[in-house]
Amino acid sequence: MKRTINVESLRQMPIEEQAIELVERKCIGHPDSIADGVAEAISRALCCEYEDQCDAVLHHNTDQGEVVAGASLPSFGGGKIVRPIYLLLTGRATKCFEGKVIPTDATAVEAARDYLKETLPTLNMERDIIVDCRMGDGSTDLCDVFRTCGGNTVPRANDTSFGVGHAPFSEVEQIILAMDEEISTRLRPKNPIIGYDLKIMGLRHGDQMTYTIASAMVDRYCSSIDDYVEATEFMKEELTTLARRFTQRKVSVEVNTADDIKNESLFLTVNGTSAEMGDDGSVGRGNRVNGLITPNRPMSMEAASGKNPINHIGKIYNLLSTEIAQEACGKVDGITEMYVRLLSQIGHPIDYPLVASVQIIPETGADFGSISRDVEEIVNNRLANISTITERVIKGELKTF
Amino acid sequence: MKRTINVESLRQMPIEEQAIELVERKCIGHPDSIADGVAEAISRALCCEYEDQCDAVLHHNTDQGEVVAGASLPSFGGGKIVRPIYLLLTGRATKCFEGKVIPTDATAVEAARDYLKETLPTLNMERDIIVDCRMGDGSTDLCDVFRTCGGNTVPRANDTSFGVGHAPFSEVEQIILAMDEEISTRLRPKNPIIGYDLKIMGLRHGDQMTYTIASAMVDRYCSSIDDYVEATEFMKEELTTLARRFTQRKVSVEVNTADDIKNESLFLTVNGTSAEMGDDGSVGRGNRVNGLITPNRPMSMEAASGKNPINHIGKIYNLLSTEIAQEACGKVDGITEMYVRLLSQIGHPIDYPLVASVQIIPETGADFGSISRDVEEIVNNRLANISTITERVIKGELKTF
Amino acid sequence: MKRTINVESLRQMPIEEQAIELVERKCIGHPDSIADGVAEAISRALCCEYEDQCDAVLHHNTDQGEVVAGASLPSFGGGKIVRPIYLLLTGRATKCFEGKVIPTDATAVEAARDYLKETLPTLNMERDIIVDCRMGDGSTDLCDVFRTCGGNTVPRANDTSFGVGHAPFSEVEQIILAMDEEISTRLRPKNPIIGYDLKIMGLRHGDQMTYTIASAMVDRYCSSIDDYVEATEFMKEELTTLARRFTQRKVSVEVNTADDIKNESLFLTVNGTSAEMGDDGSVGRGNRVNGLITPNRPMSMEAASGKNPINHIGKIYNLLSTEIAQEACGKVDGITEMYVRLLSQIGHPIDYPLVASVQIIPETGADFGSISRDVEEIVNNRLANISTITERVIKGELKTF
Amino acid sequence: MKRTINVESLRQMPIEEQAIELVERKCIGHPDSIADGVAEAISRALCCEYEDQCDAVLHHNTDQGEVVAGASLPSFGGGKIVRPIYLLLTGRATKCFEGKVIPTDATAVEAARDYLKETLPTLNMERDIIVDCRMGDGSTDLCDVFRTCGGNTVPRANDTSFGVGHAPFSEVEQIILAMDEEISTRLRPKNPIIGYDLKIMGLRHGDQMTYTIASAMVDRYCSSIDDYVEATEFMKEELTTLARRFTQRKVSVEVNTADDIKNESLFLTVNGTSAEMGDDGSVGRGNRVNGLITPNRPMSMEAASGKNPINHIGKIYNLLSTEIAQEACGKVDGITEMYVRLLSQIGHPIDYPLVASVQIIPETGADFGSISRDVEEIVNNRLANISTITERVIKGELKTF
Repeated sequence: MKRTINVESLRQMPIEEQAIELVERKCIGHPDSIADGVAEAISRALCCEYEDQCDAVLHHNTDQGEVVAGASLPSFGGGKIVRPIYLLLTGRATKCFEGKVIPTDATAVEAARDYLKETLPTLNMERDIIVDCRMGDGSTDLCDVFRTCGGNTVPRANDTSFGVGHAPFSEVEQIILAMDEEISTRLRPKNPIIGYDLKIMGLRHGDQMTYTIASAMVDRYCSSIDDYVEATEFMKEELTTLARRFTQRKVSVEVNTADDIKNESLFLTVNGTSAEMGDDGSVGRGNRVNGLITPNRPMSMEAASGKNPINHIGKIYNLLSTEIAQEACGKVDGITEMYVRLLSQIGHPIDYPLVASVQIIPETGADFGSISRDVEEIVNNRLANISTITERVIKGELKTF
Repeated sequence: MKRTINVESLRQMPIEEQAIELVERKCIGHPDSIADGVAEAISRALCCEYEDQCDAVLHHNTDQGEVVAGASLPSFGGGKIVRPIYLLLTGRATKCFEGKVIPTDATAVEAARDYLKETLPTLNMERDIIVDCRMGDGSTDLCDVFRTCGGNTVPRANDTSFGVGHAPFSEVEQIILAMDEEISTRLRPKNPIIGYDLKIMGLRHGDQMTYTIASAMVDRYCSSIDDYVEATEFMKEELTTLARRFTQRKVSVEVNTADDIKNESLFLTVNGTSAEMGDDGSVGRGNRVNGLITPNRPMSMEAASGKNPINHIGKIYNLLSTEIAQEACGKVDGITEMYVRLLSQIGHPIDYPLVASVQIIPETGADFGSISRDVEEIVNNRLANISTITERVIKGELKTF
Repeated sequence: MKRTINVESLRQMPIEEQAIELVERKCIGHPDSIADGVAEAISRALCCEYEDQCDAVLHHNTDQGEVVAGASLPSFGGGKIVRPIYLLLTGRATKCFEGKVIPTDATAVEAARDYLKETLPTLNMERDIIVDCRMGDGSTDLCDVFRTCGGNTVPRANDTSFGVGHAPFSEVEQIILAMDEEISTRLRPKNPIIGYDLKIMGLRHGDQMTYTIASAMVDRYCSSIDDYVEATEFMKEELTTLARRFTQRKVSVEVNTADDIKNESLFLTVNGTSAEMGDDGSVGRGNRVNGLITPNRPMSMEAASGKNPINHIGKIYNLLSTEIAQEACGKVDGITEMYVRLLSQIGHPIDYPLVASVQIIPETGADFGSISRDVEEIVNNRLANISTITERVIKGELKTF
Repeated sequence: MKRTINVESLRQMPIEEQAIELVERKCIGHPDSIADGVAEAISRALCCEYEDQCDAVLHHNTDQGEVVAGASLPSFGGGKIVRPIYLLLTGRATKCFEGKVIPTDATAVEAARDYLKETLPTLNMERDIIVDCRMGDGSTDLCDVFRTCGGNTVPRANDTSFGVGHAPFSEVEQIILAMDEEISTRLRPKNPIIGYDLKIMGLRHGDQMTYTIASAMVDRYCSSIDDYVEATEFMKEELTTLARRFTQRKVSVEVNTADDIKNESLFLTVNGTSAEMGDDGSVGRGNRVNGLITPNRPMSMEAASGKNPINHIGKIYNLLSTEIAQEACGKVDGITEMYVRLLSQIGHPIDYPLVASVQIIPETGADFGSISRDVEEIVNNRLANISTITERVIKGELKTF
């Protein structure tokens, strides 16, 4: 059966030519990212548990959960947590299958705590956080749809829904992702004062880029106001240098501009996340599957993190359309910008979307017919191998936020 | 001081000419909408309580909360709730001000229950729902910014953030909003079998429109499978007729296509919402402030519902930019499509955004200079009167989802 | 089969002759009593639900639950609740039986809310209280023991345990129960300032009785400190008069002695219970099944409220032994004081206790042989008709606290 | 000022001569004991935190909390936890003192988890238990009474209440305490199959003693039904031998009589406590401060565990009266049995009870006048040094359950 793949030429001002561009990323320790990461960790753990016990992944969606902020008293040299963060795990998971009881609640709690321990190593797991669980059972209807998963047939879509992706990343998008990478792999390991909860907001106004970074600082590694100021200035410098490697435009980086240094009103924290002191978080309210929030680009509102990776369109199609766009831009010449949308039809096999819609802004003079054929082939291949998305999600090879 | 207002002509294919358009709306009883509605009801109630007691609106953000699904046994003629829905209220609110204690928790619980009672009249408030509360205190830092609210100065932005809006609505957008209106004001009152939890997904593929509607049915008003089928067919007919009033394109409407009528696997519910039986909901995961989810349009990821209406950019700028676009399209000739983005700078007065960016696709032959001047004036006026947004939100005159 | 009934003459100083006697009662609105009352209301509601749906009472024990105090701001003329009371329902109940799903959670929540509404009519059910539920499922083992309940065989004991009761009530005991009755049926209806949460502590030191009463006052019915003082004096007077009808001893009654009238540190409440402002409560920590706490008498530590009335020894034997003692003292002459203990053996029919032990302090000159025979007959009859206890508990005819 | 100490001769059948005696102990891992132990651990941790930060112990009572059972699938060789135990910490503690914020919630959570880790080493703290916290603030009134604690004045009673204690322990009481000691220090360390949750019920009927022991077994140390049976028989043997060292009476010991070996319906658990699989627990529903439940003896219903050790009569007087009785029986000749009751008066210094009432059954021919004088002196001395009770409780030297 032939797939419905629709490639059209898009007459539109490419993002780099638009006057204003806005991009945002909530880093790993932001309350919304904590919620996303935990949700995804639980889904992965459940997949493994299900495979172990049932040789199949059963219905579940753990794309819910709430990070309720605690209270803390940060202090130079090391403060203390006053009231622990409260993390409520919700969502659904099949608890019983062919007479077997699956320990979904215990698995969820363990996965959440393991994830937190690894992701926020500053956290005192015995004192600073409460992980609670009110996970429900999978609904019977959806379980029905699920029976095919164990076999070799392709799962059917859980919903009439869609996924969307784009490529290539703009300069601002690239820089923000690079900053995040730089901070986690190079800056923080050497400067543990830099916390885990950062929000990077990039604004390009014509050829002027401004990166506004709010970064939690960890008090036990910060003995004084001078340390604090030094850290922000160090970050500013390093990240400005980094950004300049990606662009010819003017770059300005601001770190913790909301601080009032004189009155010592700072973004100082005990553990490096604002979740400890007033900021709640939820699954699906932060980054999209490409790691960014991009109001100048088409976006899906779906929370991908925690969704089951077998038949949930909001997860699979968002991941797949992003990969298709990236592959096409990498392999096919003549593409300035590209948007991929995959639409499902509830109950139909997920490798045959209702329509795969590709919009391309071609480079001037490019042969659109040729581009179109090449891209269509990529789309077709990717859809035929859609199950690799599922496999890589379960292995934790694909990021969802 | 002059405002930075940037009006540019956008070279882009108008939405109606694009091959594919996707729009979605989660109606009032969808779990995500329940979460949004409760969050906003609590914020409004707190505003009133604060005004009563302190002559000022104090810091709060109740844009959090989680609807954890219950379990039910729907049955023709009337089934029963097995496990109540669990609704957790979180977020922050200032609990103490100048020696006065504000009853924020009790106010939140009452506002939530009142909202539910009014919005889902089928719900047995003594049996079908648990409203729990773990609301925190407002953080001191943000309280500082807030002191100005009582006076006549303009509040300062809570964050470096933005809002986005567009106009006019496309045919698909108009039709979805009209369907929702038709259902709540005309169809449901006469046909109480139609539940509160509907998801309307509109897809335009060229000149073919398909509306896929998932509608919970209320079992006490549905004595048999025939009643059920009749109701879906009635809805299909009425909504098809309605849609045709808005468009010359081909229209197809599907209601509850995932049903398996033979096996009586239906979207039958006790109270008319899937929250009773397996679907969780969160604030900010559903409709944007214009009531829609529009992946073909620029969108903000911010949860507007429950945010404080005084200085929270994610709420105020999203509402305001939508109103600006609508006013401009209504009053200024020659606009095919228009996008408004308002960018704040943390700590600066909200009536002076860092930049107000307007993108217009002009009609062929229109005088862009003239359009530009008129639109700029509208933007300027609206910003000057930004406090009316706050006032109307508190009065409940503006929808946030 | 003959029952093992052991009647012995007890050589012991009767309570009225001991130098010191202490008795206490926590009235209906005391946090511990609220917990007890709710636990028992839920058990009764479950019994009805089970009978309706399964023609049998299934395994459950709802003798758990926690009243977590809220916060309030009482004020003359009417204050307000700041943070609602949080009531957590726990315990176990069979959720599924022969393919039928029993709505145990929804039933529990409804029963709890109904009970509270009726018992504490001052409470604003939409604002002043949160009723949460984390009830578990019945354990399989106990369910096994339970299968007999529907038929005409006698249930088997859930545990190796015992119940204990005594008669007649001493003067102090009688007076405390009479005071409670007087307050609920006569004083409070006419003087709504008197709250629901009272603790009556009776101390007899030789021939001097002192009743120390802590009584919550309801602020909406108390316009000033004068009203408050007047109410305590009125109670003091009325209850002194009442007590004198029961005794020739000296009586002194104190009401709210911990108050500091000058500094207006009073026991003033919004709704008439200290649960609104700092006092938690638990099932089984208050009155025994005779409505009293009597450290001079043998007592069982079992929480009777909420236990299943079919085979739970801690409930049935405590109720039954109290009734046996009362009946015997009423019908058989020559008994000064009497203690009944019933001991079960796990897995054996409850109408055949391991031993029924009766201790009697006979009146001087009484014929103990005759007393013994009469009492034994009463014990025997009562045990033979043990199922009437179950029936009356389900109908709500027996108090458990 | 002279203390009111009342020593009277009690005409009563000593316990060893009564026909029937019942004694019970819930060991360390019983759900009620878990609740007690956690409550007391939290109080101790708070005392230390308060002393550290404020040089005084502030008002708190953590004698609340609920152990909500989880679900488990025990299995020979090692099963798994399906749903974690849920432990809710409630109670009150002063959160703010002279401008200092005390981290009461974080301290409570940490103390609870530390206690559990140490007490139930089988428990997987990351997976098998959820420790939640909803602790309130101390009430202002009680705080007032508390100001004296830091100084050298004696605290004043929190309530009109009492404590009660007795000595010496009867044979049954001694044997049960010895069995518990034997199991924890000798049997379990060498035989880890023996769990932590044991209930020992002792019944003496004339000269026949029967000890009925329900002992959770730990499945990872139990490879088969044979191991299980062997363990119960081993316990039976060891404990019978032990008991015989304390008595000349006939002794019979039964272990896990409710088992149905044929159908493998056993008391097999994953972690050695029934809290994992169906049995809830609450503070104050288990052992009294002497470690026993003794329905043949006067008992207080007060939950001592978790009560503040400064001025809470329900804690201090129960501990003190027990110690007084034990000291007197040890030092003064001629006492067969002895009961001590201490009565407080709210607001009065705790070293001057309203009355200290001592009842003594003297040995035949003993000089009661002499006994009385000696005992009075002991009572007087102990009251004068009442603060040592507080100190030893804070150091963890006194058991409360």
